[in-house]
Amino acid sequence: MATVPLITDEMAGAEVLAVFDDIRATRGTDFINNFWRALAHDPAQLRRTWEEVKQVMGAPGALDPLTREMIYIAVSTANACAYCVHSHTAAARGKGMTDAQHAELVSIIALAGKTNHLANALQIPVDPEFDPSGSIRSTN
Amino acid sequence: MATVPLITDEMAGAEVLAVFDDIRATRGTDFINNFWRALAHDPAQLRRTWEEVKQVMGAPGALDPLTREMIYIAVSTANACAYCVHSHTAAARGKGMTDAQHAELVSIIALAGKTNHLANALQIPVDPEFDPSGSIRSTN
Amino acid sequence: MATVPLITDEMAGAEVLAVFDDIRATRGTDFINNFWRALAHDPAQLRRTWEEVKQVMGAPGALDPLTREMIYIAVSTANACAYCVHSHTAAARGKGMTDAQHAELVSIIALAGKTNHLANALQIPVDPEFDPSGSIRSTN
Amino acid sequence: MATVPLITDEMAGAEVLAVFDDIRATRGTDFINNFWRALAHDPAQLRRTWEEVKQVMGAPGALDPLTREMIYIAVSTANACAYCVHSHTAAARGKGMTDAQHAELVSIIALAGKTNHLANALQIPVDPEFDPSGSIRSTN
Amino acid sequence: MATVPLITDEMAGAEVLAVFDDIRATRGTDFINNFWRALAHDPAQLRRTWEEVKQVMGAPGALDPLTREMIYIAVSTANACAYCVHSHTAAARGKGMTDAQHAELVSIIALAGKTNHLANALQIPVDPEFDPSGSIRSTN
Amino acid sequence: MATVPLITDEMAGAEVLAVFDDIRATRGTDFINNFWRALAHDPAQLRRTWEEVKQVMGAPGALDPLTREMIYIAVSTANACAYCVHSHTAAARGKGMTDAQHAELVSIIALAGKTNHLANALQIPVDPEFDPSGSIRSTN
Repeated sequence: MATVPLITDEMAGAEVLAVFDDIRATRGTDFINNFWRALAHDPAQLRRTWEEVKQVMGAPGALDPLTREMIYIAVSTANACAYCVHSHTAAARGKGMTDAQHAELVSIIALAGKTNHLANALQIPVDPEFDPSGSIRSTN
Repeated sequence: MATVPLITDEMAGAEVLAVFDDIRATRGTDFINNFWRALAHDPAQLRRTWEEVKQVMGAPGALDPLTREMIYIAVSTANACAYCVHSHTAAARGKGMTDAQHAELVSIIALAGKTNHLANALQIPVDPEFDPSGSIRSTN
Repeated sequence: MATVPLITDEMAGAEVLAVFDDIRATRGTDFINNFWRALAHDPAQLRRTWEEVKQVMGAPGALDPLTREMIYIAVSTANACAYCVHSHTAAARGKGMTDAQHAELVSIIALAGKTNHLANALQIPVDPEFDPSGSIRSTN
Repeated sequence: MATVPLITDEMAGAEVLAVFDDIRATRGTDFINNFWRALAHDPAQLRRTWEEVKQVMGAPGALDPLTREMIYIAVSTANACAYCVHSHTAAARGKGMTDAQHAELVSIIALAGKTNHLANALQIPVDPEFDPSGSIRSTN
Repeated sequence: MATVPLITDEMAGAEVLAVFDDIRATRGTDFINNFWRALAHDPAQLRRTWEEVKQVMGAPGALDPLTREMIYIAVSTANACAYCVHSHTAAARGKGMTDAQHAELVSIIALAGKTNHLANALQIPVDPEFDPSGSIRSTN
Repeated sequence: MATVPLITDEMAGAEVLAVFDDIRATRGTDFINNFWRALAHDPAQLRRTWEEVKQVMGAPGALDPLTREMIYIAVSTANACAYCVHSHTAAARGKGMTDAQHAELVSIIALAGKTNHLANALQIPVDPEFDPSGSIRSTN
């Protein structure tokens, strides 16, 4: 059970329906998953989050769509977000993730989980060699 | 300060030196970062972890080396491991990560952090549509 | 399923029943939620935790009861504690949290989740301007 | 050290300076803290995050500004984000948080941290009484 | 539902069956729990993880088997891993953990959860007295 | 820098000094570490936390003092609490933890970190065999 109602199309007002329509048009499917139906309890949050997802995950850029989904799965796993692991694993498969890519992704997540705990248990000091300030140019 | 001594080459025994040599040969550099010097307080852990890193991060496979590093950064950020964020951001840059790729990576991590919190605050139920059991073949 | 039995009134000994009675009297309801029934497997832990909850969440002080519940939800969301998000969202509603307040609470939690990940990914150094030592007086 | 350069006013391009100007005008101070200087390595992220902060933390609404900051501190503590704890504790003080309010806030965060671990260790099942679906009206 | 299929004995190839056989022989039971059936989607990960579990949790050493399981439960609780809390609580009981030991374990986990949040909320500086570098001898 | 002042003996009022005295008497040392000096900004929190630490970590029971400290380190590592990892590693050493025990502790923490991430990435369903309800007697 959710802590807010899941908004069906019938319950939705005009502002929510407009976002639902854009999700459907952008993704080329009628399916609206529960994440958006839950967010719809707050139309401003729904719109803001969808706009950010559309831009960060969908706009052309330096990373391909599947790589973006795998990074999303990695964060969601470390944060123990069951919903997000499920939804983004499904999304990654929809964008072509093979079983072999998934297995490698999971191996890296597991190894990072392990070495994160090692570094935190041992409180290892950061090597000065990692300082990027000498080699990175100013930006914008 | 670390909770264990950082093992210099001078302090290291034969088993540790053998791993240090393999790290140097594999990476083509004399530099051994503090992570390995701290792990060296337990030679068996040092060897086991290095073997796993070499295999998971270095063996040919379905994901390219830079993608692997970006996934590592994603997990390390969510786990608040400062050492790991620094070391793998430096590694990713060493493998060609551009400023634009880094900026996109950080944007995805931040967005996932946000939506992970949304899904957990709202306790959104997983859509049955995400169940892979209908579409995934048995493996081995 | 829990990792310990949930103690019903019938199973409970005198020490547990005394705490259950105090919970009922303090809250003005017969309902004892599962958290206390699980803690009752360890009567000392049950008493200690209930005393702390009664004091921290219930005693008159500088923060009103609803604000306290919203802070509780914020921590529980970040820690991915499903039980705690549910129980304290229900408690907050019982103390008058409106849908608008809940939506704002969730927006802040989500934004903090996002910027926490940004700060950790970028390893931003703390500004010396944040040091309170110049402006805070000694206490007690 | 950060993983990206901190953008000074001298390094900043027009898009970054426009956001810096808005931060200064909104807050009534010349001080730009490191969070924004680090985000400025990605002008689109800088603008998007600042717009969200301005709206979620600053727009009139159902929660007062100090309550919002305390919720922010709660999330940041649970996520172990040192920068965010410092910056939002300073912000909360700037908005009038007293020592007594801070002490109560910390007590609630600590208690929630404790009971989150209790609920996760005992895997306590959510009481059906917490289901809001009977009592919450549809939204929008 | 899992994000990968759970591999039954009938679905398993020779490499997976060999690990399953070793698990059965090592544990003296026919039961293979879901963790290994899920990992079996990636035979290399299955073998690597089982070898590490067998060594770290099973090899003779400085800590007894029950203490090892309790440490495992502690980490799994803090990481909000429901599966791991369940499986290792069952394993600890199988290795003789009494109700009294479990209650003390949970009390320590809860207290640590509390003081971890206190230390992070207050950003307490590490005492120089904790530096082990003066008193620890070099290793290996 | 901390977000609250560290209370020296000179700054402390009678209530704080009474707790400091009890810490010194219980531990047989004059040293008061920063954790208690920071908590002292809130004398009620200082007393409540010290009483709980004294009882949970110090009272005779089913677990020996060193095992308790190792469990504490495990939780603190997973929660990325640098202060707590340092203070409890020092405490464990003070209670006799050998280098070999520390190395095993760290190995278990690292392995648990890894398998926690595996279980969360794969969303493995809990085996019904782990349900303790058939075998655990009622308590109190």
